[in-house]
This record gives sequence, C-alpha cells and structure tokens, in this order.
Amino acid sequence: MSKYWSEAIQNLTPYVPGEQPKGSNIIKLNTNENPFPPSPKVAEAIHQFDTDRLRLYPDPDASALKQTLADHFEVAPDQVFVGNGSDEVLAHTFMAFFRQPKPLLLPDISYSFYDVYCNLYAIEAVHIPLQDDFLLALEDYTQANGGIIFANPNAPTGRALTLDQIEVLLQRNTETVVVVDEAYVDFGAETAIKLVNQYPNLLVIQTFSKSRSLAGMRVGFAIGNAELIEGLERVKNSFNSYPLDMLAQVTAIAAIEDNQYFLECTQQIIQTRDWTTVQLESLGFKVIPSKTNFLFTSHRYIAGAELMGFLRTHSILVRHFSRPGIDNHLRITIGTESEMQALIDCIKRHPDIISL
Amino acid sequence: MSKYWSEAIQNLTPYVPGEQPKGSNIIKLNTNENPFPPSPKVAEAIHQFDTDRLRLYPDPDASALKQTLADHFEVAPDQVFVGNGSDEVLAHTFMAFFRQPKPLLLPDISYSFYDVYCNLYAIEAVHIPLQDDFLLALEDYTQANGGIIFANPNAPTGRALTLDQIEVLLQRNTETVVVVDEAYVDFGAETAIKLVNQYPNLLVIQTFSKSRSLAGMRVGFAIGNAELIEGLERVKNSFNSYPLDMLAQVTAIAAIEDNQYFLECTQQIIQTRDWTTVQLESLGFKVIPSKTNFLFTSHRYIAGAELMGFLRTHSILVRHFSRPGIDNHLRITIGTESEMQALIDCIKRHPDIISL
Repeated sequence: MSKYWSEAIQNLTPYVPGEQPKGSNIIKLNTNENPFPPSPKVAEAIHQFDTDRLRLYPDPDASALKQTLADHFEVAPDQVFVGNGSDEVLAHTFMAFFRQPKPLLLPDISYSFYDVYCNLYAIEAVHIPLQDDFLLALEDYTQANGGIIFANPNAPTGRALTLDQIEVLLQRNTETVVVVDEAYVDFGAETAIKLVNQYPNLLVIQTFSKSRSLAGMRVGFAIGNAELIEGLERVKNSFNSYPLDMLAQVTAIAAIEDNQYFLECTQQIIQTRDWTTVQLESLGFKVIPSKTNFLFTSHRYIAGAELMGFLRTHSILVRHFSRPGIDNHLRITIGTESEMQALIDCIKRHPDIISL
Repeated sequence: MSKYWSEAIQNLTPYVPGEQPKGSNIIKLNTNENPFPPSPKVAEAIHQFDTDRLRLYPDPDASALKQTLADHFEVAPDQVFVGNGSDEVLAHTFMAFFRQPKPLLLPDISYSFYDVYCNLYAIEAVHIPLQDDFLLALEDYTQANGGIIFANPNAPTGRALTLDQIEVLLQRNTETVVVVDEAYVDFGAETAIKLVNQYPNLLVIQTFSKSRSLAGMRVGFAIGNAELIEGLERVKNSFNSYPLDMLAQVTAIAAIEDNQYFLECTQQIIQTRDWTTVQLESLGFKVIPSKTNFLFTSHRYIAGAELMGFLRTHSILVRHFSRPGIDNHLRITIGTESEMQALIDCIKRHPDIISL
C-alpha cells in the first residue's frame, strides 16, 4: 500500500506464474512448456540475424508475421492481431470488448488470469460452474452478458469441447464477443478459427509458447473478424506501438514455416501423454482425459499438496492449485519420454504407493 | 466503429508512430534512432545464445537485468522496474499512479503519447504552456494535481532543464507522483536518478531505444522509490507476467555492460549534432538548443511541411508535426556524419536556398 498508488491499484490481486527455478537438474513439469527446443529454423533465424538492424524500431504492425499467420490459417491479414504473448493479447481483449454494462461469463475453473484482467479493468464477471466431469456446461451460458470467454481445451482441466458444441453457443450468443482461448489446441483439439468467417463476434486466441516451443520469445495472436481486430489495434496503438521486437517477429515466422517439425513435436507429446496416462492410472490415479500437453490428475489416497511436495523433494516440479474443488489435483506437464519415466519411477517410490 | 467494442474504445485516438519505410537507400532521420549499431557485445550475446532455452518461459522478474541496472545506477534492485519498451513502462505508470480525482499536469508540447494514455485510462489532464523559448515553465505547475509528467530533455523541442530546476518542483510537489521521462537524457542532460532516494514520489523512466541502439529489442525501465516500483509491478503482474523475452533481457544486459561503447556513440552524436546545428544556422534555420539526438528547427522563409516534402522527394525522412504553434518546425534525428552531410547538401539544393 502506498499513498501514491491509484485507488484501484490497492485492490489488485496480481497473477502468480508458475515457478521458474534457476538451477538445473530439475525436471520441470509445472508451466506447460514444450520439452522440445524450437525448430532448427528458429535457431537459424536468430544466428543469422543482422544485429546492426536492432538500432531501428521494429515494424509496429508486424506485417510479415501477420501475413505468415494469415496464409497458414487461410484468413486475411486484417483478421490477425499479434501481441507480446497471448497474455498481452488477452489483456487488450478484455479492455477492447469486455468493459460492458453487463457481466462477462466464464467458467468457474479456468485460466486464473481471466479474473485478474476483470479486476484490472473493473469488469464484472459471472462464474459458471463446470460439469462434474470437468467439461464446460455451455448450455448454462444463457444469461444476458457483456461477453463470454473460455479456454478450449480448458486449463487446468485439459478437457476439450468439439466445434459443434462451440457452434451451438455461437448461434445463441450473437450480440457480444465470444473469445475461445486456444493456448493448448494443437495437442488434440479442433481450432475454432474455421468458424471466424461465419461468426463476426468470435475471437480465437493462440500462442507460440506451447506447441511452437517459443515461451521464451513471447508471441501470441488472435484471429477473428476484421472489425474485432481493429478494436484490438486501437487498444494496442494506445498502449505500445511496438509490442513485438524484431527477433520475436522473425522467430515466430520461422516457427510457423517449419510445420513438419511442429507436427512431429506435437505428435510425440500426444503419444507420451497417452503413455503417462496409462502409467498413472495403473498407480491409482484418476486422470481427466486430456487434449493438452498436461494431465490433470488426482490420486485415490494421496493428497495433491502432499504429492507435489514429495515430487519436489525429488527435483520434479508439478503445479498444484489450492482452490477448493480442485485442491486434490495436480497439473503435470508432458515432458520427454525419459522425464515422464522419471516421474513414474519417482511416484512408485512414494511410501503410500509402495505399500499398495 | 463496431457494436462489439467497449464504449471507451470508440473514442480512442491511438498514437501514430513515425514511419518505418521498408525500402533501403533512405536516410532515416524521422524516429530518433541511433545511427550506430548496438554494442558488439549485443551481437555476441545473440549469436552465442542457446536457442534451445527458448522453449522455457523467461524470468518473469528479469532479475539479472534489474541487478545490472541497479549496479549501473547505484540503486537497489527493488528500485528498478523493466518493461517492453519505455512506452509500456509509461502505460503502466499512468495506470498505477495517475488515475486520481485531480488532473495530471503536463506540458502542452511534449511526447504526444501522454495524451493517448490519458484517453485510454480516462485521466483528466491540464496542459501547461511551454515558455516562448520552448523551455518548461516549471513554476506554473502549482495547482492541485493527481500527478505531473514531463520529458527531460523534452520532445520534440530538445530542450533540457537542470537538476536544480527539477528539484525546486519536487520540493513543492510532494503528495503526488512526479515522472521524469528521460528517453533522451544521455545526449547531454543530467539524469534525475540521483534524486530518487531523496524524493519518494519521483519516478525516472529511461529506454534502451535511443542511446543504447536497441530500438529493435523494446526495453525500457523506471527507477524510483521501492514503493513506486511495487505499484508498477502490481499492474505489470495483472497484465502480462513475462513482458521481456529472453533475448531482450540478455541484449539489454550486454548493452549496459559495454559502457565504453555507449560513451563513444553518444559523444559522436553530440559532436555531429553541434556540427549540424552550425550548418543549419548558416542556411537560415533557427535551431532550438538541443540536449538530445535530434534538432528541432524552423527555417526563416521555408514552411516546415514544404521542407519535409522536399527532403522526402530526395529520400531523406524527417518528422513534421501539424500541431499549431510548432507546425513550422521539423524534428531531425542526428544520423552519422555522412548522413548529416547529405542532409545539408540536399537542403542547399532547395530552390529557395539556392536563390538566397
């Protein structure tokens, strides 16, 4: 608290990201990073970059990157918005579309940054409970609203809706913006980008941080009707003209262009996820069916917090949320095959599992 | 206009950055970039960077960069805030401190993004006229306020206040935050960072874009009392946990560490600025005394817009502002010696100058 802060700042509850440990020899399964390095084309783009150019401002519109994304997703460049990670894209989205007289509708269990944005921009929110099976209850999103946002697949549950299910919602909710946050879509779910030309109020947000192995470069994007994109550009150009540095722009382009590498990495992660699911189930875990690069899981006998602490003492980091209703669960990122083998071996050494 | 936009978005007037032409063979004196490449240490940091690390999130707190800046400016690390260019630092500053019941005071001629932030965050502003000599009239900043911001040296005028003058303002205005935007301070003015331990309401903002030749990497920072920095961190962590990508962090550290190179580049620019001033004066220009890497100048007979157009047809870009009171001026970035020679040669070929 400080007398110099604006009043609204006093009441902010900032987001707390997953830990980024500084040591090595840690198996890091806590922030849903990709276990594989970015494409060799990314390394090439960086190492061949003419660093003298850094004295100049980058292209404020990131036109080349927008064109690359437009080509890849078969939309027009004016249907693409890019930002400094999908978190910045989300922040501008809340500012541009959700400051409305009616409340925003969102799932009660989802990416916790959504509530932080509501707090930051004084947006009223109504939280719709998930179903008992952790799926979104889209038929409950019927009340008058100032917008709807959900993640598909959802985090931290990992469950995905089908496009048909999302389309039913879009047919019913045409007057306010519907945002589908697809941070994890590339690990087995279907993107709603193919619906943006039919539904002018649909905005789809994706990131380079997970499936493209570029968390370290901070690039996210949104695809939707040109009118929605223009709204985002207005906010962006009232906030920071140059959100993406030159290297972020060239590495993102290189990552999209190497589609073969992207497909191989995501396929490998899906395969390792399915293997890990079977292993965990055989050790007494309940595993929510995942379409992401993580598993949301609870053990029949061992409490989530206890298990997180046990793994931590063996240098394996996983994420635990203290929120009631999910506090017995762990969110475990899918690493390499050998990392997941190490996880399973470690769990097998837990005293309560040995004794089973 | 779109029915999907929040009402406030309809009324935004976004900032328009200086043009970034895509062709080459252009002498670009329009966006105050440094004519020299970044330090060779920056190139080394990029080319030796282990790109496999990019799969991981960057340090959300940029601790190593903060420590480097703290050491350089002889403050504590918790007195340092970093952001995605000083524009992002400014945006968070307006959000954190200036949303107050009383109006923000700022010069009527200054960095035009300040008014854009006021618009974005619904902050009332009172514009204080500059003196006739374009210096800030600090004795006019006496009314009850919710904060004060000015650039020192000011843009686009290039004029600087002394630290003594700034201190008089700080002694009088202790209850609200005073922000000194020092984007151009390294070209001959004195930094107010040495006052932050005496004045807990003083926040100094700087950038790597000008004197450190890193416009392409987007790094800015603020230095002040730990309480002010904490306010900025609260906003940042409610907006985007990871504003600086890994390469932005390592290049900024490399740029600060090569202080010798920084001193040589800024000295050269100051020397070229003084040479250009003499040349322009001999051609009938009035040149405002500059402590920056640009000159703010008007010709006795030739209108600013006309001259800008003339230079443009000869592939030299300079900046012209249509705002009444300064619409006869040009803002000319100091380039290399040969670029400034080309500028002077070109002006000498202007029909109205030849005929003098």
